[in-house]
Amino acid sequence: LLSMNTNIESRKSREGLPAHARMVFKGVIFEVWQWEQEMFDGTTQIFEKVWRPATVEIIATVGDKILMEEQDQPNRPNNINTPSGRVDEGEDPMDAAKRELLEETGYESDEWSLFLKHSADGKVLHEVHYFIARDCTKTQEPSLDAGEKIETKLVTFEEFIRLTEEPRFWMSPEFINYLLRLQADPNKKEGFRKLLFPRQ
Amino acid sequence: LLSMNTNIESRKSREGLPAHARMVFKGVIFEVWQWEQEMFDGTTQIFEKVWRPATVEIIATVGDKILMEEQDQPNRPNNINTPSGRVDEGEDPMDAAKRELLEETGYESDEWSLFLKHSADGKVLHEVHYFIARDCTKTQEPSLDAGEKIETKLVTFEEFIRLTEEPRFWMSPEFINYLLRLQADPNKKEGFRKLLFPRQ
Repeated sequence: LLSMNTNIESRKSREGLPAHARMVFKGVIFEVWQWEQEMFDGTTQIFEKVWRPATVEIIATVGDKILMEEQDQPNRPNNINTPSGRVDEGEDPMDAAKRELLEETGYESDEWSLFLKHSADGKVLHEVHYFIARDCTKTQEPSLDAGEKIETKLVTFEEFIRLTEEPRFWMSPEFINYLLRLQADPNKKEGFRKLLFPRQ
Repeated sequence: LLSMNTNIESRKSREGLPAHARMVFKGVIFEVWQWEQEMFDGTTQIFEKVWRPATVEIIATVGDKILMEEQDQPNRPNNINTPSGRVDEGEDPMDAAKRELLEETGYESDEWSLFLKHSADGKVLHEVHYFIARDCTKTQEPSLDAGEKIETKLVTFEEFIRLTEEPRFWMSPEFINYLLRLQADPNKKEGFRKLLFPRQ
């Protein structure tokens, strides 16, 4: 029934893992890594972490608004999010962001910048890259795959900052934290507004 | 070299997974689950999530202070956290919290309550239970295992709330979120203070 890839490659390691860690399982998304960890008393234990591919989030501006998605996915209820997606193996994160924005929304930008990146350093290794795509224009219709039902809509900067109070807002808690800190600090908030809308 | 448990049990499923999901790998901490997911066009794809055991976090009060840990762990730099640990299979989370508090700090309490719980509903299934243990008293010396070097210290309520600004504060971004919202709302903050110190 389940076609899983158990062909364990001999890749060195992943960032955030010790060099002698070994991949013991490779699924369709996750890899499981283990290593012998020396404890404080000289004994060793098997330590384990999982790795998943990096993802990108795109804050795309159109005129004086921000482009959001309302999305249905199989096995996940209706949610509101920024355009986003997974980085393919070997792909540059910014290229992934450009590809995902175009596929999901049909929009393109000439002005891209990375403004935030976090990688949980706990037991789950997962890099998330946040890009700003300024002054987007629509160049084609979205090309959605069988697992995507996406409608785009535009929100104001103030509405965007306040999405922390929206239960259907589907973003990492790290990004919610980022927005909460903007709400608490007028200077930070204005700095972020200028980053999104440098000419307004 | 690596002693991993590949004995896949025939357990039904885990909370947050469809009933027909199957465990395809069981490591020392993580389980990998997969299922056939019907897409919007009637085709199917293999979906995958990982599950890890629930963990507990304990906010323990001693007099008018909160009990924190400064901790070194193999493979993780010095960090500051609340007493915490993993819930064993079949164990009640509150029992796990009592056990971990006693083992890590030597403190006990007669007044326990759950005040927050989150379970990420993304690709990583992980429940975190936050308990308050009021008016703790020290009844024994800590009994640390080979992977633990823990020193306890007491902080004030104001210092605790402001740990959001401490880079070595090792707590989930969801809990950082919780504290940031307290900082932004004096009523919420006073409510939390009363929850920790009902008689002060």
